[in-house]
Amino acid sequence: MASSHSNYTNSPCAACKFLRRRCTSGCVFAPYFPPDEPTKFANVHRIFGASNVSKILHEVSPHQREDTVNSLAYEAEARLNDPVYGCVGAISVLQRQVSKLQRELEETNADLMRYASSLGGGTTSSYGGQRD
Amino acid sequence: MASSHSNYTNSPCAACKFLRRRCTSGCVFAPYFPPDEPTKFANVHRIFGASNVSKILHEVSPHQREDTVNSLAYEAEARLNDPVYGCVGAISVLQRQVSKLQRELEETNADLMRYASSLGGGTTSSYGGQRD
Repeated sequence: MASSHSNYTNSPCAACKFLRRRCTSGCVFAPYFPPDEPTKFANVHRIFGASNVSKILHEVSPHQREDTVNSLAYEAEARLNDPVYGCVGAISVLQRQVSKLQRELEETNADLMRYASSLGGGTTSSYGGQRD
Repeated sequence: MASSHSNYTNSPCAACKFLRRRCTSGCVFAPYFPPDEPTKFANVHRIFGASNVSKILHEVSPHQREDTVNSLAYEAEARLNDPVYGCVGAISVLQRQVSKLQRELEETNADLMRYASSLGGGTTSSYGGQRD
């Protein structure tokens, strides 16, 4: 079966194409920036710069590089969509959602406790203080 | 009353000090990178690069620049602490927390509904089928 990458084995990766340089076999970008995804590199280059991305990739172990590139691409896209807050905006939204859900859960638990005690209390009261 | 910035009016901002350049009155960094917070600029410079930060600051309106710098500083610190996931790691944690809370809330609401219907059923039964 043909690999999905076989079509561009000899093409430079998206990073080298963008930077107009020769893509060597040891290129740190090539495994994570295939030539058919040019926007992914353009985004991280625009926000972090190629040399910072390269520095970060050299700092992490090879098996962590894919996750690193994906998180950098996510951050870069978020910053391009929202130059003021970037993905910190998503963190704020999620933090508010967590607080709201925690409050709702506390209230629902309190309702549940009231129901449980009124069910228990009501039964006791109907036994202890029944009319006629 | 003396301004808290009065002590370093003539000092270059943390960015210009770091970049060893003259801090002019129109410096885009100066209002957000005071000289007493050198790490803030060092972090954003290490992750985004000074020219990208400057570009982003020029893209947003002046009243949004403080929020922009603070979110960039937050992202940079998160990336330095966790080079693989950066603040995307916090997003994953929060997303899992939201899912867990939503499940707990659904379960608690289901319990509440069961209590309410059993209480309704019990009450009807005690009215309809009371002893004596």
